[in-house]
Amino acid sequence: MMTRQKFVDNLLQRTKGAAGTRGEAFAPANIALCKYWGKRNEELNLPVNSSLSVSLGKLGTRTIVKFAKNADRIYLNGKPAPEYFASRTSAYLDLFRPEGVFFEVRTKNNIPTGAGLASSASGFAALVKALDQLFDWRFNPRELSMLARLGSGSATRSLYGGFAVWHAGQRADGMDSYAECVYEDLKDKKIPAQPSCKVWKNLCVGILEVSKARKPVGSTDGMNRTRETSELYNSWPHQAACDYDELRTAIAAEDFPMLGKTAENNALAMHSTMMAAWPPLCYWKPQTVSLMNKVWKAREDGLELFFTIDAGPNLKLLFLKKNQAAVKKLFPKVQIVSPF
Amino acid sequence: MMTRQKFVDNLLQRTKGAAGTRGEAFAPANIALCKYWGKRNEELNLPVNSSLSVSLGKLGTRTIVKFAKNADRIYLNGKPAPEYFASRTSAYLDLFRPEGVFFEVRTKNNIPTGAGLASSASGFAALVKALDQLFDWRFNPRELSMLARLGSGSATRSLYGGFAVWHAGQRADGMDSYAECVYEDLKDKKIPAQPSCKVWKNLCVGILEVSKARKPVGSTDGMNRTRETSELYNSWPHQAACDYDELRTAIAAEDFPMLGKTAENNALAMHSTMMAAWPPLCYWKPQTVSLMNKVWKAREDGLELFFTIDAGPNLKLLFLKKNQAAVKKLFPKVQIVSPF
Repeated sequence: MMTRQKFVDNLLQRTKGAAGTRGEAFAPANIALCKYWGKRNEELNLPVNSSLSVSLGKLGTRTIVKFAKNADRIYLNGKPAPEYFASRTSAYLDLFRPEGVFFEVRTKNNIPTGAGLASSASGFAALVKALDQLFDWRFNPRELSMLARLGSGSATRSLYGGFAVWHAGQRADGMDSYAECVYEDLKDKKIPAQPSCKVWKNLCVGILEVSKARKPVGSTDGMNRTRETSELYNSWPHQAACDYDELRTAIAAEDFPMLGKTAENNALAMHSTMMAAWPPLCYWKPQTVSLMNKVWKAREDGLELFFTIDAGPNLKLLFLKKNQAAVKKLFPKVQIVSPF
Repeated sequence: MMTRQKFVDNLLQRTKGAAGTRGEAFAPANIALCKYWGKRNEELNLPVNSSLSVSLGKLGTRTIVKFAKNADRIYLNGKPAPEYFASRTSAYLDLFRPEGVFFEVRTKNNIPTGAGLASSASGFAALVKALDQLFDWRFNPRELSMLARLGSGSATRSLYGGFAVWHAGQRADGMDSYAECVYEDLKDKKIPAQPSCKVWKNLCVGILEVSKARKPVGSTDGMNRTRETSELYNSWPHQAACDYDELRTAIAAEDFPMLGKTAENNALAMHSTMMAAWPPLCYWKPQTVSLMNKVWKAREDGLELFFTIDAGPNLKLLFLKKNQAAVKKLFPKVQIVSPF
């Protein structure tokens, strides 16, 4: 069986550079429009389905890596990182650790704290880019995305700005499960698209925070429980495949309503597979339902407004810049982000 | 194509009695443990899946039918019935109406008002029983359940006390889509069961009312939208078939935790298929989610407590009599019903 260590060793064999003294890199947070939900291989973080996201421009993680003595030193936002964060980071660093070597890692998120934006995605993407500099590996983004994948699946997509796709791949060794810009993928698949579709200047994301608390059931546990016990999960791979195609088509055609509808339906389908698991898995809070209803009401009243929800209680609104004022009026606490 | 009128005429051909002057009957409300969700034939109200319910003993509908002059007169709880109720009743009566004949229908529900207990189920079951008396048809319960089905699918199961099953059937003419007592069905299927399983003296149902409002999207529209647009609905027929079998096994074995788990999972799966529809269909209110979380917390703490939710926002708790005090303490507003 391919282990994650063997996977890393295979990739590292091809590198030639000599380690420097410091690596520093930034990676953006990303919001999945077609969700990653379900692992076909947990060891290598290989997904059941391909996913697609939009990155959040300048919002994300900046990480500096150096060598350290005696023990890893992990800092988060200027302070020693909490235990869960430090141990997960050190376990990931073990994959690249020459014997007797320790690391100092300084990570800063400029994402609104606790806004439910998966910081593990931008975190592992920034870390792997910083390591690439430190060790002078000179990996290309696809290779980096595969290394980031071992830290967190959604980190694959944070290697890129704008719209990114993560190919589920089919190989058991995980070598075809990498991310790339959606525009590259459209070209590969010969889907006609204007270069302008790479940049949707008018797209806005609005963050509605319901809870800052860490989720009670982690994503991996949630995925596994759903895959093992939810009958409705049997329909998920096909739904995700259709949504993935729809979203690529919507991006190529610069069709916002199609993008919004598909993203919202995909998120609700993902949450539906969880609720039908046993024990039931519901990341929603009462306020989540109340905000969803508010969006549906606004849409009935003619506003082009959609949402997506990750494995958590917070909503991310999707709308065009021209509707920014209307959205602000309906949701005075919304935090608006321009991905491009 | 078989129309509902032809279906009724075929059945009525076999009757011999002469009409009297008055019919009066009672039928209980029922709570589906395996839900009826999706029609394979809307004209004849033929379901995609078999369903299973428990009737609520003395809670239900009492109906008196007489002949009237000039026009139908429909009364609900002592007052002229609201328009939606009167027109639905008259349309149903048309199926049995000899030329130039009108009816007076007096219907009384002793179900806690607005508790989200489908009054159309007990209503149509009581009406068809009263019509059977009035016209002296002398139909057996299976035949009556098929006539009730034309008024409301779930009414089939309200012809019986205790646990009832409604067979989906396969025939295009609907003649194998009827309800019966689960114990009869177990005998037919040669599933070993004690006669005592007919009566679960210790079973309690607790009604938690979230809203009295009529649902914004009726069941038929909700089913059709789900069937037509929800990818996850593709997994529903198989889930429902498994749950139906599990529930029959649980009833035969008098296994309450198995019954409760299956009923809750079935309800959540049904709601999941709706949320994954487009436009999304969510009957839940914020308070629904808060009550669900309270049940899950109580179960984690060791209480044998489950719930089911119909196409609406209200919860129906399932528990054993020995836990009645604990449930009352957690949910002071719960209305407790003993089905047996």
